[in-house]
Amino acid sequence: MIRVLLYGLGPIGVMMARQLAARDGFRVVGAVDVDPAKVGRDVGALVGLPRPLHVKVSPDARNTLKQTKPDIVVLCTSSSINAVMPQIEDVLKARVPLVTTTEELSYPVRKHAALAKRIDGMAKRAKVAVLSTGVNPGFVMDALPIALTAASERVESVTVHRVQDARSRRLPFQQKIGAGLTPEQFAREASRGTIRHVGFAESITMIADALGWQLDRITDDVKPKISATAVASEYLAVDPGFVAGIIQDGVGYRHGTPIITLHMEAYLGAPESYDSVHIEGVPKIDMKIVGGMPGDIATVSVVLNSIPKVLASAPGLQSMRSLPLPSYFAGR
Amino acid sequence: MIRVLLYGLGPIGVMMARQLAARDGFRVVGAVDVDPAKVGRDVGALVGLPRPLHVKVSPDARNTLKQTKPDIVVLCTSSSINAVMPQIEDVLKARVPLVTTTEELSYPVRKHAALAKRIDGMAKRAKVAVLSTGVNPGFVMDALPIALTAASERVESVTVHRVQDARSRRLPFQQKIGAGLTPEQFAREASRGTIRHVGFAESITMIADALGWQLDRITDDVKPKISATAVASEYLAVDPGFVAGIIQDGVGYRHGTPIITLHMEAYLGAPESYDSVHIEGVPKIDMKIVGGMPGDIATVSVVLNSIPKVLASAPGLQSMRSLPLPSYFAGR
Repeated sequence: MIRVLLYGLGPIGVMMARQLAARDGFRVVGAVDVDPAKVGRDVGALVGLPRPLHVKVSPDARNTLKQTKPDIVVLCTSSSINAVMPQIEDVLKARVPLVTTTEELSYPVRKHAALAKRIDGMAKRAKVAVLSTGVNPGFVMDALPIALTAASERVESVTVHRVQDARSRRLPFQQKIGAGLTPEQFAREASRGTIRHVGFAESITMIADALGWQLDRITDDVKPKISATAVASEYLAVDPGFVAGIIQDGVGYRHGTPIITLHMEAYLGAPESYDSVHIEGVPKIDMKIVGGMPGDIATVSVVLNSIPKVLASAPGLQSMRSLPLPSYFAGR
Repeated sequence: MIRVLLYGLGPIGVMMARQLAARDGFRVVGAVDVDPAKVGRDVGALVGLPRPLHVKVSPDARNTLKQTKPDIVVLCTSSSINAVMPQIEDVLKARVPLVTTTEELSYPVRKHAALAKRIDGMAKRAKVAVLSTGVNPGFVMDALPIALTAASERVESVTVHRVQDARSRRLPFQQKIGAGLTPEQFAREASRGTIRHVGFAESITMIADALGWQLDRITDDVKPKISATAVASEYLAVDPGFVAGIIQDGVGYRHGTPIITLHMEAYLGAPESYDSVHIEGVPKIDMKIVGGMPGDIATVSVVLNSIPKVLASAPGLQSMRSLPLPSYFAGR
C-alpha cells in the first residue's frame, strides 16, 4: 500500500481522491485544503464516494504531514510554480516525495530556472524525488512524441495536434477555454492570462532538450474559436459569433525556423477529438490517437501511475523524460 | 564521439554501419564478422559508402575489443540467446557495454531466465549495461503500448496490430516471411521455426510485467497468408494459391482469458501498412501509426538512439522498460 496525502481538493484533487479509492495499491492517509467549506469533512463524503475514507480535510499541511507520515504527496493546487513554492517547501521539509500537477514545473524552462533549481536542491537535501506531470503537459504533447523519435534516424521537425470537442468536459474546463464569451471578453481574459493552456513552453523545452536542439525562441499564442453556428453543452449555449473555445499555438524556433509546433484546439462542437504527432525526418512518422486522449481522467492516471517511479527514482526534480518508461501501475 | 564496435555485418549490421557513418556523435572504431568474404575489407567499402571508414573487418572479436577499446559494442549476429552467448561473454569480459538486436534477449522470458540471469550477472561484474532492442521487439509492440497505459485508470486488455505490405522490404525479409512458397513448403518451414517473427513471448512478458499481470500461458501461432491474386515485389512474384507472407498471433492469457494480443501480418500486397494499439479499459485508448513504423530503419534507429541511455544506465541486463523514456539522440 502506498500511503498518499492529497494536497488540494479542487476539481482535479477530487478526481484524484476518487481514483485513489477505486484502485489497488493506494491508500489516502491525509488531505489538505484551505477552503473552509471543505475543512473538517471526510474526504469520501466530500468527493461523493458511497463510503467514508475516515480521513478529514485539514487546513494545516505541516501538521498533517507530521501526523500521517505519507509515502507521497499528490499536490493539485495551482499551475504556477510561485503559487506552490511554499507548499512544496513544507512537503520537502518533511522529507516526503511529491507528485504535482503544477504545469509550470513539468519541465524547467528558462523563465523558471531559478525556482526549479531551488526545488531540485531542496529535494536532493531531503533525499526524495519531485515530479510534475499530467496528460498535458507531461504526456500527449511531450513524452509521447519524444518516445516516437526513438525510431528516427533523423528528425527535422515535430508537430503535435491536440483537438478536443469540449462539450464532454466539465464546466470549469469549458469556462477556462472561454466558451460563451464575446470575442472582446475573450481578448481581455486572454491578455490577462486567465484563458490559456499552461505548459507549451515546458513541453517544447522538454522536446528540444530530448532531441538536443538549441532553440532561439518559443512563441505561445492564443486566439478564440468563434462559433459559426449555435452550439451547446450540458452547461453552456454559444450563439453564432460568440466564442466556442480556444485555439493555441506554441512554436519552438531554431535558426529562425519553426521546428517544434504544438497546436491545440478545444472548443464546443469540434467535429473530431484526436491527438496526433507528425515527425518529419527519416522515417516520417504519423501517429494518431483516435477520439483523443481524454483530459482530466488521463491527467489523474498519469499522476498516480507515476508514483511508484517517483518513489524509486533518484532524489531531485525529475521529469517524464528522466524517469523510466511510463506505464500503468496495478498496485504491488 | 561515442566509439562503436560493430559486431556482425549481415543486412542489419550493414545498415547500422551506414546510419552510424551518417549521424553525428558516433564513430565506428572496429568491425567483426567471421564471413571470409568480409574479413579484411574496409567497412565503408563493404557497406557501400562513397568513402572508406578506415576500419577493417576482423574475424577476431577478442583481439578487436582489446585493440580498439570501444565505448560500446553493437551486436547484430543472431535472434538466439544461445547463439550470441559466447559473443556476449567476450564483450563483457572486455568490460564493454553492449546493445544487441538479439530478439530473445529483449526481455527475460521464463524459457531463457537462466541465460538472462547469467548475462545480468556478467554485466554487473563488468560494471556495464546490456540492452537488446529494435523496432519489434523493443518498441512498437511493447514499449509503445506500455507507455500508452500510463494514461489509464484501469487496463483490461492490450491489443497491438502490426500490418505491413512486404513489397517494400528487402529480399531476405520477403524470404523470411515465406513469400513465394507453396502452403506445404510454408508449413514445413514454420514447423522448423525458420519462418517466424521472434519476440512475441518477450513483448508479451514485458507488457505483462509492466502492468503487474501474472499470465497463465503465452501462445504464439504462425499461419500463411495465401494470395488470392497474383502479386509481385521487385524481387518475387506470387501466384494465386501461393504464400504471400505470414500472419502471426501471440496471445497472453490470464485466468484463461486472452488479455494481451499481438497480431502481425506481413505479406506482399497488404492493402495498408499500419501499427495500432488498442487499450481496453478506462479510458479506452486507440492509437494508430498511419503507414506503419518501418522495419529495418526503425530497428537500426532504436538501437543507436538507445546507446547513450545504455552508457548512462546502471550495470546489468536492462530493457526498454527499465531505461528512461526512449528518444532520438542527436550527438553530444
